[in-house]
Amino acid sequence: MSIREYVQTVRERDWQQLESGTLRLAVVGLGWWTREQAIPAIEASEFCETTVVVSSTHEKGADVAATTPSVEVALTYDEFVDGDSVDEYDAVYICTPNALHLPYAEAAAEHGKAILCEKPLEATAERAEELVAAAEDVPLMVAYRMQTDPGVRRMRELVADGAIGDPVAVHGHMGQQMLDVVSGDPDQWRLDPDLAGYGATVMDLGIYPLNTARFVLDTDPVSVTAQMRSDDEAFREVPDQHATFTIEFDDGTFAACTASQHAALSGHLRIVGTDGELLLEPTFLGESPQTLTLRMDGRELELDDGRRDVFGDEMTEEFDYFADRVLRGEPISPDGDHALVDMRALAAIYEAAETGSEVSVR
Amino acid sequence: MSIREYVQTVRERDWQQLESGTLRLAVVGLGWWTREQAIPAIEASEFCETTVVVSSTHEKGADVAATTPSVEVALTYDEFVDGDSVDEYDAVYICTPNALHLPYAEAAAEHGKAILCEKPLEATAERAEELVAAAEDVPLMVAYRMQTDPGVRRMRELVADGAIGDPVAVHGHMGQQMLDVVSGDPDQWRLDPDLAGYGATVMDLGIYPLNTARFVLDTDPVSVTAQMRSDDEAFREVPDQHATFTIEFDDGTFAACTASQHAALSGHLRIVGTDGELLLEPTFLGESPQTLTLRMDGRELELDDGRRDVFGDEMTEEFDYFADRVLRGEPISPDGDHALVDMRALAAIYEAAETGSEVSVR
Repeated sequence: MSIREYVQTVRERDWQQLESGTLRLAVVGLGWWTREQAIPAIEASEFCETTVVVSSTHEKGADVAATTPSVEVALTYDEFVDGDSVDEYDAVYICTPNALHLPYAEAAAEHGKAILCEKPLEATAERAEELVAAAEDVPLMVAYRMQTDPGVRRMRELVADGAIGDPVAVHGHMGQQMLDVVSGDPDQWRLDPDLAGYGATVMDLGIYPLNTARFVLDTDPVSVTAQMRSDDEAFREVPDQHATFTIEFDDGTFAACTASQHAALSGHLRIVGTDGELLLEPTFLGESPQTLTLRMDGRELELDDGRRDVFGDEMTEEFDYFADRVLRGEPISPDGDHALVDMRALAAIYEAAETGSEVSVR
Repeated sequence: MSIREYVQTVRERDWQQLESGTLRLAVVGLGWWTREQAIPAIEASEFCETTVVVSSTHEKGADVAATTPSVEVALTYDEFVDGDSVDEYDAVYICTPNALHLPYAEAAAEHGKAILCEKPLEATAERAEELVAAAEDVPLMVAYRMQTDPGVRRMRELVADGAIGDPVAVHGHMGQQMLDVVSGDPDQWRLDPDLAGYGATVMDLGIYPLNTARFVLDTDPVSVTAQMRSDDEAFREVPDQHATFTIEFDDGTFAACTASQHAALSGHLRIVGTDGELLLEPTFLGESPQTLTLRMDGRELELDDGRRDVFGDEMTEEFDYFADRVLRGEPISPDGDHALVDMRALAAIYEAAETGSEVSVR
């Protein structure tokens, strides 16, 4: 392949085989992410449309329906669970607080619908296992949007191609000012352990470097160490306003990660190998240009794939990938079992911070 | 100050007060670092000259003397300890294997000479304490070259000035292919615990992000976690061919670090704060241009200070700083007590990896 062809194809869908079709989605949970990112991304997608919205009240759904022409029905959570309007949608996208993923996934599975569930899969590893068991007869994909991000896929190809030799060390970080981003929004549920699970920051942000490193290296975590701290009153119920953790992966690579809900908007993923390094920065938080840098032997190549709406593009890719797999009846990855490894790693990271001990990911 | 003045002054010596004078150095240990970096840096300095070289044999010293006109005497280690030619030098630069710092520092102190000792200060925290005690009556500086690196000093000023708000997270990494760099060289002592101390990699490389973060943040480590691994036969006696560690600092900042003696030449230091971030990259290993990047509110400023011989410049700055303080009789920082904090942190990092427990830095 010529370098000209490479640059031309960096955003091509290496996964797409579907030629036509439409997957009608019931969107469950109408927080800011769903309204401002997911629904517009579905509108921009090739193979998906939002036909049903599900939230706490008909009014909230009606507000969204008013600005989303494809929406035919607004249901309450109870109506959705009861099976109202099941013929109006083919699959569900679950974007509620973590501890509500299980009941709505159970309902979707009972209705025989394919499920795209936000990450982390649930509030605890045990509840996530229940979710995977409940969904065993329907397609289940977990919404790791970085896995359909073209920059991340190019990074993974470069690692597999030996561009940096054997991976040795990973650095990953994700930070934001959560109280600014979600001010006055029900997303404050992230500070409530009953809804969020183990904590507010590694569950919500730390999972990005963890899972993206797994995907890029094609490896799984073996053991972890961690340190966490909450300073501000708003974070009194959770251990991790700020966190750092290390991971040993099963290929021997070490990852050194940080995450913070009280930091400047910031994110990066770096893989250092025996022959070079790869850096994706900024990443995780939709900033552009998301730039992929390859360094080897003192040479450096920087790739800006031209996207300026990175969040939107990532979500559109994710929804079309989900439709491609569901409509063709093909297996989906990242699936429930993939996400369970993260849930066990998250449990281990919080246990490591609490006990001050290295913890195996079982 | 105008931005034009700032760029003009980024490499100015904010520490220099000496106007004239010469500090005559006995250089103890003639490994590749001394021959290829330190002695040329002393030749380029304003206030230092190498008048005595000390090594295992007269022949080795004579080889160096032949290409270094200022050298008047070549001593063996025994002759140096015995006090031969003490009138030919005013101070000593100790660059031997770690476990030999103590005897030569003791000898230098007995001869009443100021000491510039390479880092880590000794092989163990206990031996480092002995060294500091032995040198209590002479000036003792520890050779943290990053602390006189202009880029690092600008980074520290920016943090102190609030450019990134309150520091939240640090990422630091240093990697090299040690067996290539020092092939056939006595520096293989780094693989011998009797000479190197706790290990090969965190002692030699991990100390850079550790100490530079301390200096830039003006903070000290409180507790650490760590994971280490040695794969290759050459590293069988040491635990840390590859390592990762986290540090909680006393200002609450978390650091996530990696170090490897079997990685591509690579190094970076990043400080994420509540309002922005600072990145120094590449750094630690003399690569140029060492670039300092400041990001805040979506704005970005990149500073290349123009140096293309970063190792040489760092060492010249370090030697002239040492002379400035010694010749004026002024206190020196980084001193022995500063270095003891690192030695205790290094001991804690190795203990954390061995025990799988978070360890306090006592």
